[in-house]
Amino acid sequence: VFFVLIVILLSGKLLGELVERWGQPAVLGELVAGVILGGSVLGVIPDPGTEMYEIIHVFAEIGVSILLFEIGLETDLMEMFSVGRTASAVALIGVALPFGLGFLYWYTAQPSIGATPEGISFAMVCIFVGATLTATSVGITARVLSDLERMHTPEARIIIGAAVIDDVLGIVILAVVAGLASGAAVGVFAISKIFVFAVGFLILAVLIGNRFAPVLFDAVDKMRVRGVLLVTAFCFALGIAALADWAGSAMIIGAFAAGLVLSSTNQFDSVVEKIEPVADVFTPIFFVAVGAPVNVRLFIPGSEDFDLGVLIVGLILTAVAIVGKLVSGLAVRRPDVSKLVVGVGMVPRGEVGLIFASIGLPAGILSGEVYSAILIMVILSTFIVPPVLKILFAAQPQPLAPSIEELEDTHF
Amino acid sequence: VFFVLIVILLSGKLLGELVERWGQPAVLGELVAGVILGGSVLGVIPDPGTEMYEIIHVFAEIGVSILLFEIGLETDLMEMFSVGRTASAVALIGVALPFGLGFLYWYTAQPSIGATPEGISFAMVCIFVGATLTATSVGITARVLSDLERMHTPEARIIIGAAVIDDVLGIVILAVVAGLASGAAVGVFAISKIFVFAVGFLILAVLIGNRFAPVLFDAVDKMRVRGVLLVTAFCFALGIAALADWAGSAMIIGAFAAGLVLSSTNQFDSVVEKIEPVADVFTPIFFVAVGAPVNVRLFIPGSEDFDLGVLIVGLILTAVAIVGKLVSGLAVRRPDVSKLVVGVGMVPRGEVGLIFASIGLPAGILSGEVYSAILIMVILSTFIVPPVLKILFAAQPQPLAPSIEELEDTHF
Repeated sequence: VFFVLIVILLSGKLLGELVERWGQPAVLGELVAGVILGGSVLGVIPDPGTEMYEIIHVFAEIGVSILLFEIGLETDLMEMFSVGRTASAVALIGVALPFGLGFLYWYTAQPSIGATPEGISFAMVCIFVGATLTATSVGITARVLSDLERMHTPEARIIIGAAVIDDVLGIVILAVVAGLASGAAVGVFAISKIFVFAVGFLILAVLIGNRFAPVLFDAVDKMRVRGVLLVTAFCFALGIAALADWAGSAMIIGAFAAGLVLSSTNQFDSVVEKIEPVADVFTPIFFVAVGAPVNVRLFIPGSEDFDLGVLIVGLILTAVAIVGKLVSGLAVRRPDVSKLVVGVGMVPRGEVGLIFASIGLPAGILSGEVYSAILIMVILSTFIVPPVLKILFAAQPQPLAPSIEELEDTHF
Repeated sequence: VFFVLIVILLSGKLLGELVERWGQPAVLGELVAGVILGGSVLGVIPDPGTEMYEIIHVFAEIGVSILLFEIGLETDLMEMFSVGRTASAVALIGVALPFGLGFLYWYTAQPSIGATPEGISFAMVCIFVGATLTATSVGITARVLSDLERMHTPEARIIIGAAVIDDVLGIVILAVVAGLASGAAVGVFAISKIFVFAVGFLILAVLIGNRFAPVLFDAVDKMRVRGVLLVTAFCFALGIAALADWAGSAMIIGAFAAGLVLSSTNQFDSVVEKIEPVADVFTPIFFVAVGAPVNVRLFIPGSEDFDLGVLIVGLILTAVAIVGKLVSGLAVRRPDVSKLVVGVGMVPRGEVGLIFASIGLPAGILSGEVYSAILIMVILSTFIVPPVLKILFAAQPQPLAPSIEELEDTHF
C-alpha cells in the first residue's frame, strides 16, 4: 500500500511540475499521471473490487473533500449570494442545454455504434446520454482556478457557485437515472423529495453551522492538546461530508458547506494554514485516481479498443458537451465578468461524468460502444479545460484582490 | 469509514485534552480512547480481517511512521553517536534481563494457569514468555517525551537510541520466535543473517541518505508546484519505511532513519513545519489503534473473561517486565542523566509487545490464559509509564535547550 501511495504522489507531483513549467495548471499533470498509472498503461492503480482499490479510494475521497473544504474556506458566503442569481442561471442552462442537445442528437442521428441492448427502449438510451452530458466537475475547475491563482475573481465565484448548484441538480439527475436504470418508475414526488433533501441539507448545514461553529471552535481554541484545532476542522469537514452523503446530498457539497461555515470563525487563518499541508498530501491522490480509469487504447489506431465509429461519436458528444456549457456562460450579465471564462469553467465532466456513465454500463442501458463514446466525451471535456482557461486568463489583466497564497506569503 | 475515522480522531483528542488537563501526557488519553472504542467496550474499531480494519490499519501505520520520522528529524545524528555506547548498554541489558527473568520465573514457578498446549514443549513456552518481555515501544515513550517537551534532554536521546536498538534486536527475537512457533529449526546462521539485515539497513540508509538526500531536496526545493517539498518528504519517510520492512528491518526504523537523514538538509525547517499538521492527523489514529485490542473484562471481577489466577500471573509478569527494564537504566554512567528516567522510559511494551504476543496465540504455543496474562503485562507496562515519567520529570529542573515546539512558537 505504501509503495502505491508513494508512486501516486510522486508521479503526480513530478508530472504536475513538468506541466506547470510548460505553462499549464498542475492538475493536468496529476490527471496524466493517473492515466499512466491506470489500468490501460502501467496498471499500478488497482481495479475496483480489490482491497487496495478501496484503500486508495478512501484517500481519494478524503482528498476531494478536503479540496472542497479549502474552496469553501476561501469562499465568502455574502459574495456567493451576490452572484447567486447569475450562478443559478448558469447552472440551469448548463444542465438543460447539454441534456436537450444530447437527447436530440442521439434521437435524430441514431448513431450506428452498438445495438440498443435488448429490453431497453431507445428513448431511455437517449435520456441516459443526455443525462451524462449534464455533469460538471467542480473539483477540476476549482483546482485549475487555484493553480492559476484566480480563486478570488468574480468569474471564479460564479463558476464555483454554478458548479455547486450543478452538483445538487446532478444528484437529482443521478437518482432519476439510477432509478430508470434499475427499472423502477420514477415519479415527480420521488424526484422532488431528492431535490429537497439535496438542497435542504446545504441550506440547513450552513444555517446551523453558522450559528454553532464559532461557539464550537472558540471552545476548541481554548484546548491545549497538540493539533486539536486542525483535527477538529478535519473531522468537521469529513463529518459534514459524510452526513451529506448519508442524507442523500453529495459528499463534496457537505465538505464545501463545512468550509463556508468555518470561514466565519475566529480560527479561520489558523485552520487555513494548517489544513494546507494535509490537503497537499491527500488531494493529488484524488486527481490521479480520476485519471486512472482513462483507456488510452480508445485513441490509438490499431489497438484492440480502437473503433473509428466510436471515436467519431465521442467527438460529436464532446462538441455537444462543450457547446452546451459554453452557452450557459451567456447567462452572465455583468460587464466585468467574461462570459467565455465562465462557460469554459463549466465544461469539465471529470469524476462526476465518470460516475454517471458507470451507472449505465452494468445496468445494460449503454452498450460497450456507447459507454466508450461517452468516456471519450468525459476525458476530452476534462483535459481540454486547464490549458484553455490558462490562455483565457492570460489574455485578461491580473486580478486586483490578492489570492490566499499571496496573503500567506506576506505573513511569513 | 469517514465516521470511524472521525470518532477515532475526536475521541482521541477529547480524552487527550482531559488527560492533559489532569496533568498527564496526552498520549494516555488516546490509548484510553482506543480501549473505549475497542472490541471489549464499544466495538467501534473493527476486528482484524475486515476491510475497515485494513483501512484504519493503513492510517495507523502511516501515523507511527510519520511519528518516528518526526522524532528522527528532531534527533541529531552526532548527539546520537555521543550516547551510542550508553544506549547500546541500556538496550542490551533491557533485552537480556527481562528475557532471563521471565524465562526463570516461568521455568521455576510453573504458573498453574492453562495447560501447556499439546505437542508444545514446556521450554518453548518459557522462551516465548521471556521473548514477549523484551519488547520496547519507542512510539509510546517518544510521544510521552514529546508531550512533556523533553525530547532534547540527554535522557531522551539515550532512551530513543536504546529503543531503536531494542527494535533492531526485537526484529531478530521476533524472527527467532516466529521460527520456533512455526516449528522450524532456527540456526545461528539464520539469526545472524536477520541481524545483519536489520542493522545493515539502518546504517546503509543513513550513509546513503546523508550523501544523496541534500542533493535530492535541493532539487525539489527548486520545483514550483504546490506542496512538492512536503509530498516528497512524506514519500521519503513512507518509502524508506516500506523499504526497511521489505528488507527485513522494521518499518518504524526506516521512518526514523529517513528523519535522521532529512535533519541534515537545507529544507529541514520547512519540512518540520509542514509535516506537523500531517502528523497531527495520522498519529492519533495509531495510538487509538494500540489501545483498541485491550480487553477491559480481564480486570473486572465477575465478568466472563476475569480469572484471578490470570490476573495474578499477569501482575507478576508486569513486575518482572518493569524490574528488567528499570535495571537497564543502571547502565547509564553519566552524572547528568537520571538512571531512573531512562529505566522507566524503556518500560512500555505497547504495540511491539502486542505483536510478540499475537504470534504465540495462533501458533498454539500460548494457551488463552497465558496470552491473557501477557496482555495484562503489556497493558500495565504501557499505561503506567506516561504518568510516572511525568512525575519524574516534574522533580527535575527544566531542560536548558528549548524544544522544537518552543522554537516554533517564537518564530510565528
